[in-house]
Amino acid sequence: MPHRIITLGEIMLRLSTPGYERFINTRSYDVIYGGAEANVAISLANWGESAAHVTVFPTNDIGKAATNTLQFAGVDTSLIQFNEGRMGIYFVENGAMQRSSKIIYDRFDSAFSNLNPDDFNWEKIFEGADWFHWTGITPAVSQSAADLCKAAVNAASRLGVKISADINYRRNLWQYGKGPMDIMPELIKPSHLIIAGLTDFENCMGITDTDYLQACEKAKTMCPSLKYVSTTHRDSISASANDLNGVLWNGETMLESKTYEMTHIVDRIGGGDAYMAGLIYGLLHFDDQNALDFAVAASVLKHSIPGDANFVSVDEVSQLVEGKNVGKLLR
Amino acid sequence: MPHRIITLGEIMLRLSTPGYERFINTRSYDVIYGGAEANVAISLANWGESAAHVTVFPTNDIGKAATNTLQFAGVDTSLIQFNEGRMGIYFVENGAMQRSSKIIYDRFDSAFSNLNPDDFNWEKIFEGADWFHWTGITPAVSQSAADLCKAAVNAASRLGVKISADINYRRNLWQYGKGPMDIMPELIKPSHLIIAGLTDFENCMGITDTDYLQACEKAKTMCPSLKYVSTTHRDSISASANDLNGVLWNGETMLESKTYEMTHIVDRIGGGDAYMAGLIYGLLHFDDQNALDFAVAASVLKHSIPGDANFVSVDEVSQLVEGKNVGKLLR
Amino acid sequence: MPHRIITLGEIMLRLSTPGYERFINTRSYDVIYGGAEANVAISLANWGESAAHVTVFPTNDIGKAATNTLQFAGVDTSLIQFNEGRMGIYFVENGAMQRSSKIIYDRFDSAFSNLNPDDFNWEKIFEGADWFHWTGITPAVSQSAADLCKAAVNAASRLGVKISADINYRRNLWQYGKGPMDIMPELIKPSHLIIAGLTDFENCMGITDTDYLQACEKAKTMCPSLKYVSTTHRDSISASANDLNGVLWNGETMLESKTYEMTHIVDRIGGGDAYMAGLIYGLLHFDDQNALDFAVAASVLKHSIPGDANFVSVDEVSQLVEGKNVGKLLR
Amino acid sequence: MPHRIITLGEIMLRLSTPGYERFINTRSYDVIYGGAEANVAISLANWGESAAHVTVFPTNDIGKAATNTLQFAGVDTSLIQFNEGRMGIYFVENGAMQRSSKIIYDRFDSAFSNLNPDDFNWEKIFEGADWFHWTGITPAVSQSAADLCKAAVNAASRLGVKISADINYRRNLWQYGKGPMDIMPELIKPSHLIIAGLTDFENCMGITDTDYLQACEKAKTMCPSLKYVSTTHRDSISASANDLNGVLWNGETMLESKTYEMTHIVDRIGGGDAYMAGLIYGLLHFDDQNALDFAVAASVLKHSIPGDANFVSVDEVSQLVEGKNVGKLLR
Amino acid sequence: MPHRIITLGEIMLRLSTPGYERFINTRSYDVIYGGAEANVAISLANWGESAAHVTVFPTNDIGKAATNTLQFAGVDTSLIQFNEGRMGIYFVENGAMQRSSKIIYDRFDSAFSNLNPDDFNWEKIFEGADWFHWTGITPAVSQSAADLCKAAVNAASRLGVKISADINYRRNLWQYGKGPMDIMPELIKPSHLIIAGLTDFENCMGITDTDYLQACEKAKTMCPSLKYVSTTHRDSISASANDLNGVLWNGETMLESKTYEMTHIVDRIGGGDAYMAGLIYGLLHFDDQNALDFAVAASVLKHSIPGDANFVSVDEVSQLVEGKNVGKLLR
Amino acid sequence: MPHRIITLGEIMLRLSTPGYERFINTRSYDVIYGGAEANVAISLANWGESAAHVTVFPTNDIGKAATNTLQFAGVDTSLIQFNEGRMGIYFVENGAMQRSSKIIYDRFDSAFSNLNPDDFNWEKIFEGADWFHWTGITPAVSQSAADLCKAAVNAASRLGVKISADINYRRNLWQYGKGPMDIMPELIKPSHLIIAGLTDFENCMGITDTDYLQACEKAKTMCPSLKYVSTTHRDSISASANDLNGVLWNGETMLESKTYEMTHIVDRIGGGDAYMAGLIYGLLHFDDQNALDFAVAASVLKHSIPGDANFVSVDEVSQLVEGKNVGKLLR
Repeated sequence: MPHRIITLGEIMLRLSTPGYERFINTRSYDVIYGGAEANVAISLANWGESAAHVTVFPTNDIGKAATNTLQFAGVDTSLIQFNEGRMGIYFVENGAMQRSSKIIYDRFDSAFSNLNPDDFNWEKIFEGADWFHWTGITPAVSQSAADLCKAAVNAASRLGVKISADINYRRNLWQYGKGPMDIMPELIKPSHLIIAGLTDFENCMGITDTDYLQACEKAKTMCPSLKYVSTTHRDSISASANDLNGVLWNGETMLESKTYEMTHIVDRIGGGDAYMAGLIYGLLHFDDQNALDFAVAASVLKHSIPGDANFVSVDEVSQLVEGKNVGKLLR
Repeated sequence: MPHRIITLGEIMLRLSTPGYERFINTRSYDVIYGGAEANVAISLANWGESAAHVTVFPTNDIGKAATNTLQFAGVDTSLIQFNEGRMGIYFVENGAMQRSSKIIYDRFDSAFSNLNPDDFNWEKIFEGADWFHWTGITPAVSQSAADLCKAAVNAASRLGVKISADINYRRNLWQYGKGPMDIMPELIKPSHLIIAGLTDFENCMGITDTDYLQACEKAKTMCPSLKYVSTTHRDSISASANDLNGVLWNGETMLESKTYEMTHIVDRIGGGDAYMAGLIYGLLHFDDQNALDFAVAASVLKHSIPGDANFVSVDEVSQLVEGKNVGKLLR
Repeated sequence: MPHRIITLGEIMLRLSTPGYERFINTRSYDVIYGGAEANVAISLANWGESAAHVTVFPTNDIGKAATNTLQFAGVDTSLIQFNEGRMGIYFVENGAMQRSSKIIYDRFDSAFSNLNPDDFNWEKIFEGADWFHWTGITPAVSQSAADLCKAAVNAASRLGVKISADINYRRNLWQYGKGPMDIMPELIKPSHLIIAGLTDFENCMGITDTDYLQACEKAKTMCPSLKYVSTTHRDSISASANDLNGVLWNGETMLESKTYEMTHIVDRIGGGDAYMAGLIYGLLHFDDQNALDFAVAASVLKHSIPGDANFVSVDEVSQLVEGKNVGKLLR
Repeated sequence: MPHRIITLGEIMLRLSTPGYERFINTRSYDVIYGGAEANVAISLANWGESAAHVTVFPTNDIGKAATNTLQFAGVDTSLIQFNEGRMGIYFVENGAMQRSSKIIYDRFDSAFSNLNPDDFNWEKIFEGADWFHWTGITPAVSQSAADLCKAAVNAASRLGVKISADINYRRNLWQYGKGPMDIMPELIKPSHLIIAGLTDFENCMGITDTDYLQACEKAKTMCPSLKYVSTTHRDSISASANDLNGVLWNGETMLESKTYEMTHIVDRIGGGDAYMAGLIYGLLHFDDQNALDFAVAASVLKHSIPGDANFVSVDEVSQLVEGKNVGKLLR
Repeated sequence: MPHRIITLGEIMLRLSTPGYERFINTRSYDVIYGGAEANVAISLANWGESAAHVTVFPTNDIGKAATNTLQFAGVDTSLIQFNEGRMGIYFVENGAMQRSSKIIYDRFDSAFSNLNPDDFNWEKIFEGADWFHWTGITPAVSQSAADLCKAAVNAASRLGVKISADINYRRNLWQYGKGPMDIMPELIKPSHLIIAGLTDFENCMGITDTDYLQACEKAKTMCPSLKYVSTTHRDSISASANDLNGVLWNGETMLESKTYEMTHIVDRIGGGDAYMAGLIYGLLHFDDQNALDFAVAASVLKHSIPGDANFVSVDEVSQLVEGKNVGKLLR
Repeated sequence: MPHRIITLGEIMLRLSTPGYERFINTRSYDVIYGGAEANVAISLANWGESAAHVTVFPTNDIGKAATNTLQFAGVDTSLIQFNEGRMGIYFVENGAMQRSSKIIYDRFDSAFSNLNPDDFNWEKIFEGADWFHWTGITPAVSQSAADLCKAAVNAASRLGVKISADINYRRNLWQYGKGPMDIMPELIKPSHLIIAGLTDFENCMGITDTDYLQACEKAKTMCPSLKYVSTTHRDSISASANDLNGVLWNGETMLESKTYEMTHIVDRIGGGDAYMAGLIYGLLHFDDQNALDFAVAASVLKHSIPGDANFVSVDEVSQLVEGKNVGKLLR
């Protein structure tokens, strides 16, 4: 029986220039809908879990299109609210060689950022739920989004739903008068699993250690129910070639994955969300080392697929973990 | 020597579904940049006039792309200001048969709407100018846009620059606490030429006459320097087939154009702006009847061209007026 | 509360040449997934009903893609079975002017045609169901498909689920040793609503009357629970211009719709399914005349949309019925 | 057994803007290879005749691509010569509504125009040939092309090969110091069939009659072996809607075809060549009236197909002649 | 004078997702027609040989399109038979990075698999032929295909036509009740040249040696006329980067080619067929080592070209062999 | 205040096959307009300089399109002349892996090559100018182009405008009866900066030294005002992977840049022009080493962008020089 996983977060209209076109003279944008948390839900639904995404969309055809796109991937959209307002947008320009990829955000005053926390009944939302996933983007968007996140975290904690948080500190957000240290520590506290790099630890938890293991141990002292801490390391040789690996601290051991050389990258956006989804799936199905390996392999495969969503099967990820059929022609 | 024409108004990113795709499942958007007043500037520049557009763009690659697009068409962009903020957007879905075309606006809080009127020196902008064109969309956007429009109209009037105004009442705008009757009458007063239908007359000037000639005469009493009033009549048989004609009142006679049957419409957006540009060009070069005929023919040809901008030559418009080479294969 | 509607039938991969390209030299095919009954389910789900489609897909990525496409449209896919085998295909070449549209079917030996009727538990499928819809295509595909259809019809009849049948006689099918008269009369018997033209009546029910009203009355004598009979009339001036209307006999009156002139047709495939869905929706929500009018208007709008699926809203259909906003530019 | 038909003439690279894009801002050109006489060869090969085209291509990849494109259509390319030089080009902008279609020619100094007549052995080329077809474009290109045409016509006449000529007077050509009256009368003289309108008669044969029948009779007196004269009448309501019919004078009667209303035209280029091919095919297979009807129907269908080449089957043309399956959906 | 080469085998419709799209959400398929043996014929025709392909196509527009595509490449299609039935299909998803390429076959019950061996007169087919090429795919398709293959091999052997066979064992075929060991040994026996790896040797000839040279020598004892055995070695670092080389045993020496590092692979399908064609061409024109080098270089270049067909010139291949102009910009 | 830079040279229509398609079977060409000197002007205008390009276009829509494209990039087009004649064309096929990129030129008899030198008033053109840039392509095109170039160089020299020349010897040009040694030495003489490799030195200046420093010193003796000599070294591992660096001799030191490994090249055309523009910009703004570094980095980034024009910002180039944000995802 599939696990019931609830994700919370904003989804935006992603407009990407085709191929290697630049913003300055593109004549068209490829259209998808993506968001860090929804990308996780899509991976999990695609792998057979029962994933439901909680968000707010505008009550127009753009919001309807985003809803249907989630449904396409098998995500339960029955918990989505519809408000007046606009859909946040991010424009993407795919880098190549030494030229960086660029994102221009146009997300302020979205329907999501203007949500009303009272519209959401978390007791009902978490009925039958096994896992709740949120990221540090949501409380950075607006006060009401932060309030909603807090209500969700509290309810999940109270109802015994395991919580994962991708801390994901975004410098350009947090523009509504609060800083991450005002809000994040309390939100992170009941987590079962967090993804955090050293910058995230510093900005969102005030942990300034430069040794990752020590930072993990300090996080554990602050979050009594914390079981796992993880992060990825990415080495960008160029926009087209990156090396990637991950580590997972399970309170005892700092597990490490192998390092993948990724050349000929197709689309790196969503790579972190693919890792997050892989970790959740892995921890629900495998032992810790296999969970980590699954997560990294899922993230690697994401880089070969256009769009935010990681449409790969459990089999494909597992075979990459085992080094089988890598880069072959499968008939 | 070309005439110097100044236009003022917001330009937005237009995102259109390709072909007859609907918003719900489109995978890409065609990209152009358009705005009612800039569309007029583009036509005039394309016909050899010296057209400069006054607007505010965001200081990012999207704003740069819009600037370059104006330059492509030969519009002088040296008067444009750049602010922090976003580019307004409108999503377009092209209708067909009985199915209507749809526009979803996402223009609030744009860099333009947040402009600072003090950034613009109208004495300098109007140096050497023959004509100033604005529309009723600008004062409907925000208080600061209305203030800028007023400063521009006042300066033009003071400096003897002829003014044209496309009243263009938009019910969905005017959301900043003022109504059109609070602002428009004073702005319209010094006009030389206005485009207005009965609804525009009623909402923006308080003229409730249902006879168009009487409404024109009443407008004239309110606007002492008013020389011309014009409007078009469109009969929509379907999204693909419309009939179009125009009338021009020159204070003495209500001139009428022939009626064009337009079937197999390619893109009707910008049709009104093409008419406006045709009328300005016509009144600068031809007699009144020929000006009207030129304007309607320009608008008809616009319907055959994808995008907001009317890339037709003076020759092509004139030949349509004369009924020459219509729908032929020109080798 | 939405109605629960179950549809049954094969879905195929539709490969259409882009624009007006011909099969002979096309370089790409546009991809959708469609089937007469699934198209009905998609319309109904899009209009807010709870529609579940019963079918069999191959257990490969093509079958998965078709499943997700149904989910996109909001159709419940939890009743779908997966078998070894292939996905049926139909190639589509869009006509223009006097040139006809062409379909090449490549549907034999599909996973659906090789289904096992025992894999379906109709008692469970019909739990909470209000309506069951099937077409004459299914029993024409294979003996096992005919058996499944019979099991479904019997169960629906037994459980008091209303049944609609689009007779839809297809000369090119029926290749497994049975003819329509061997099978269809019994299947049609418990219907509440049928769509049938004179050819369908003759081939599938043995009714040879050339007067439509008499044929309807005769059908009623053969099908005691029959409440409605309907059909559309299409006049093909060219591939680009058709006239369309519909009639609905409710046992008392032969209601007629207005006739729509459809010029600039975008895609006529699925027009009949849009009508069928409109009729089901209409009979569930409106009086008989309004149901018919809704069905015809829904079918007309379908002709303006690429693909089999009729992504129009109830509002759009209703406005066309009322003659409001037809072919306009809606801002 | 198929008839052996030899065609002679230049083929150019056709670069067409996609959809209704204009030259001014198109970002891509659709590529085909076309020429009046080769278009005839393609039609005839497509209908099962043995058609060989004689031309000269540059010895580069563009010439190779054009060769292969002819082979695609089944045209025998073994008689083609390859020279240094360039491929002539024509740029095409598809009109819509009242806006005309435009062709910009860039064909001077092509490999074909610089051909050496001695490279062609007409005795060998005409081995087994039944028919030779040329147009008035070839002698208008250059002196050497005119010389080649003359050698071909003389050989065909000497060897008893039937000759058809599409007079096709082009004002923009004839730039090498000769006029049509210097060259054409002698070339036309041995024709079996000519296509000529009144303008062609006047410019290329000096026949100034304004009555078409009289002009035909005068042409017959100048060309003793002339058996057939034909032309089409096209009424351009707009670029998207034309009426078309044809007449064929067989020395006795002026036969007329029905008039086709063509709306929603896809691509009118090659329409005349489709007519020419239809007439040749028709006269080889049918009686005179049926030949004319076949030619007009073939031309009508061409207007529904993108590109110069008329990829329709004999069946499709014949069904249009008979009014069967017009604009239907054929399954 | 070109050599006359006859190839035999099925051609399928290849449907490839564009770019790096996956099956799950592609909206279009790129269309080509390919088959292992026809790919060889296309290479040889493109290099100036007289290549004729023997196959069976359905008698519909898809079969016609495939025929014309072969003609485009200069392949003689006059020996092709047309039957009722369907065209086999293979769906292709291009891999990237660590993600494998995938092929889904949908080829059962094709017109080819249902061919009638009596429809082919091999005496006539082999008139003037120098070489006959077949692969192990054909006898794996169906009994009648195996019978046809046997008739062809026997006739070629009897008539002194040199035979090459690409053993090409396909585990997923052989579903009609026979295994490769029932059929292949006899078919391979009269070969002049075979391409076989160790797996092919084991499955199709029962040779279980793991030393390639010993396997070759054993094959020679089984096939008295065998002159050459060859195979390629491919090392897949990823879907985007492979290393490739080849060996050729001429009965005396095991010749080896250099190893090419292929990064940024565009399309690897057809790479083996390009090698096969290169070997045939090479053995007809060069010494053994040069033949091998030509074959490997031809295969390398194939990987840079979209589609199955290897549209490179003899010059391009030869220059790569010589290391000239590799990866330059040639003006 | 921006520098005023005048560039002179032909612009051609560039027609590129999409992706990795070959000329032989491409169905479309991507369209841009490019030329060595105009590419330099575009870079400089894009970086904020006042760049005006001097050229001759045909007086048709193709010439208009090219003009507007320059305007898009901010280049001053007011100095352009329009003549009868054609636009030169170059066809581009993008290489991949070991397969080379190919250019087919079709530029003879262009409007530019037939220019009249008297149409240009260089005194006026150079009003306020700081820099004049030309290349060795222009005098190679035709006698009149060489004459124009000479007039320009003389005027620049006389008026104290700094001159840069990209010697750029093109073997395929120089077909009008003069060789480079007849013309180039005199034209190069007044240069401030030249770009020349050893081949250029030999063919255009008669300098046969194989030591680059010695060649530079010899050039200096021939050109008294010569201040800088520069060139790039490119190592083509494959069409997809090149190494690139540059050297700059400032009369004292031979400065060297770092070597960039460029893999996953998108479009290498215009790479040299990007270098040239970078050098001019660098020498106007930075010290010599920084100028060189800026030039090489600008050239590297060009390889990541489709088309001839290098749409990168000064910031992006500078960051690459500093090794910051290389190949990252910038949010």
